[in-house]
Amino acid sequence: MHFYIDSKELTEGVLSVIKALPVRTTMPILEGIYLEATNEGVKLKCSDLMLQKECLLPATIEEEGFAIVPGKLFSEIVRKMPESIAEVTLNGKSLEISCGRAKSSIQCVEATEEFPEMRFTGDTFTVKMDHSDCRDMINTTVFATAQDDSKPILTGVLMELGEDITIVATDAFQFAKRSMPLKNPVPERDVVIPGKSMVEISRMMDETEADVELTFTKTHVCVNIKHSRLVARLLDGDYIKYKNILPKDHTTRVMIDKAELMESIDRAQLMAREGNNNIVMKFHDNKLTISANSFVGRVNEEIDVQINGEDIDIAFNPRFCINVLKNIPDEKIYMDFTTSISPCVIRPAKTEGYYYLIVPVRIYSNF
Amino acid sequence: MHFYIDSKELTEGVLSVIKALPVRTTMPILEGIYLEATNEGVKLKCSDLMLQKECLLPATIEEEGFAIVPGKLFSEIVRKMPESIAEVTLNGKSLEISCGRAKSSIQCVEATEEFPEMRFTGDTFTVKMDHSDCRDMINTTVFATAQDDSKPILTGVLMELGEDITIVATDAFQFAKRSMPLKNPVPERDVVIPGKSMVEISRMMDETEADVELTFTKTHVCVNIKHSRLVARLLDGDYIKYKNILPKDHTTRVMIDKAELMESIDRAQLMAREGNNNIVMKFHDNKLTISANSFVGRVNEEIDVQINGEDIDIAFNPRFCINVLKNIPDEKIYMDFTTSISPCVIRPAKTEGYYYLIVPVRIYSNF
Repeated sequence: MHFYIDSKELTEGVLSVIKALPVRTTMPILEGIYLEATNEGVKLKCSDLMLQKECLLPATIEEEGFAIVPGKLFSEIVRKMPESIAEVTLNGKSLEISCGRAKSSIQCVEATEEFPEMRFTGDTFTVKMDHSDCRDMINTTVFATAQDDSKPILTGVLMELGEDITIVATDAFQFAKRSMPLKNPVPERDVVIPGKSMVEISRMMDETEADVELTFTKTHVCVNIKHSRLVARLLDGDYIKYKNILPKDHTTRVMIDKAELMESIDRAQLMAREGNNNIVMKFHDNKLTISANSFVGRVNEEIDVQINGEDIDIAFNPRFCINVLKNIPDEKIYMDFTTSISPCVIRPAKTEGYYYLIVPVRIYSNF
Repeated sequence: MHFYIDSKELTEGVLSVIKALPVRTTMPILEGIYLEATNEGVKLKCSDLMLQKECLLPATIEEEGFAIVPGKLFSEIVRKMPESIAEVTLNGKSLEISCGRAKSSIQCVEATEEFPEMRFTGDTFTVKMDHSDCRDMINTTVFATAQDDSKPILTGVLMELGEDITIVATDAFQFAKRSMPLKNPVPERDVVIPGKSMVEISRMMDETEADVELTFTKTHVCVNIKHSRLVARLLDGDYIKYKNILPKDHTTRVMIDKAELMESIDRAQLMAREGNNNIVMKFHDNKLTISANSFVGRVNEEIDVQINGEDIDIAFNPRFCINVLKNIPDEKIYMDFTTSISPCVIRPAKTEGYYYLIVPVRIYSNF
């Protein structure tokens, strides 16, 4: 293998594909970047078996071939190269990189097996979206995915496709749902995409200003942007039947200024985290009183709100409140309650298509 | 205690004094901020017994008094307050803080003893410096202080005062010395100031544009800037007789472009850190070859240099080279060598008053 490539383009390509490098793995080959010189250009690829990122870079190929190089080290080397044309040569087991005065050679990963390739085959269908809608829908929901593996399906994000696109994520304490009409309606279909892959799809949206296409097979999703390509495996199994747990009704609806609420919760959580990590919200007479208590001290603040329905006292983990509130675009929000032990629905007062739900904390004392 | 204070000024004061809060301590009282309302204003104070920071803030005092509040929590509370006038009231063991809608109360630290006060008494003498000279001299030397306590005196910085001011720091692997004439010559005197206190003195320089005064007693140093005051204990004991270890002569002097050298070392250390953490420098025929080897690969680069004297091969820990080079202002540097196992002197080619020394690594192979 022997080729010449612009060092800046190589750096960008490497920094893009290493997003799929696994943090921990028992397969040494996955710590590598697969590098291939073909007549189309230089191909880079990383995979953690669930997510694969590739790119194809323009290059002057003198000799075709391939190598697997240690991903982290290679990315640091190319990042520190001067801006110039880099010459890359495979010499036995070592890859020589020469760029201006910078001259390194690195030992390739000993491959006892082929570098894994995610096959993207079978019938496909395609969803077309505006790139910023796509990024925005992912970023405002993916935080609610489960971070541990106790229910693996909840580490993914449900995507319901049809006339609309609906994205759902929940870890059973917080629940996020975004919907919007699709430009090109597709046959009804539910898919579950791992949260990590969704974050990476969202990041790819920064690389374009155009519409993007998400192409699905039965088992995978694929996104192509310019020279980059992402393939992610879908999660097997059915997502939870979330519609059954959404409250059908409410007895209290409160309209609140989002910024005031966030600031008060932010202050209250300073105390809450030293204690049982709860904040108590009491809605009475168009006033919300937010309080938190612990052995280090207490916070007690009042906000003017607009209450429709019965007064209610309820307690939350402040982190879930903040997670939700910071994803809402409007200045005013609605909080809908039924009882102090049922989930609370939070929505923007005006903007459609956002639906959040947080589960309260049961408090046994009379506050 | 009861007073009114501008929340922004309170925040700035707190963020300034908590720099002296100890990271770890066995004395709970030191985790607190000492807060006192006097007829002069509100006094804040933190101490780790080696370093004390205080400030005096303008306030409307309704009732004098004092309290010790948990430092970290209090700083977070004031930082999250809206910009307004805060009312602070001591109510038994709890300090009530009210600022706009924000209302907290925090439990004071139970003081079983008096908050430590560093006494700054006895004969004094004062060194006057430009604030940016002071910051610059500290920042370009303090990195070389020892980070562990095996030789406690080396965790400090030597300050030699007289006609000039000379600052020296070393951990026995790297050595840094800066000198400049003093505006007001003082009687000859050597003091050793802890590295952490020096860093804090340097930070204080950002708060002023004027000349600063460092006032010394036999045991302490004190710096006053606007409302802030720092008192630091000097280290006991004599600093090492460093003049004996400075090379008297050299057999090779090399002039090198600093940026080229730093870039090459930066790339070479990628390989070095995977191996024995050495880079090898060979000076021959007005060329410097920098190389590093490890099982993951190697770097081998050439730089044009100007060699006066004998050719030499020598090896260094790349971290020490980078530490020194990034503190040198000039584009060109001199490196002076005697043998490949003696310290190497590094200086700017033009600017006076900088003197660095790094100890080479002994290599047993013939490179």
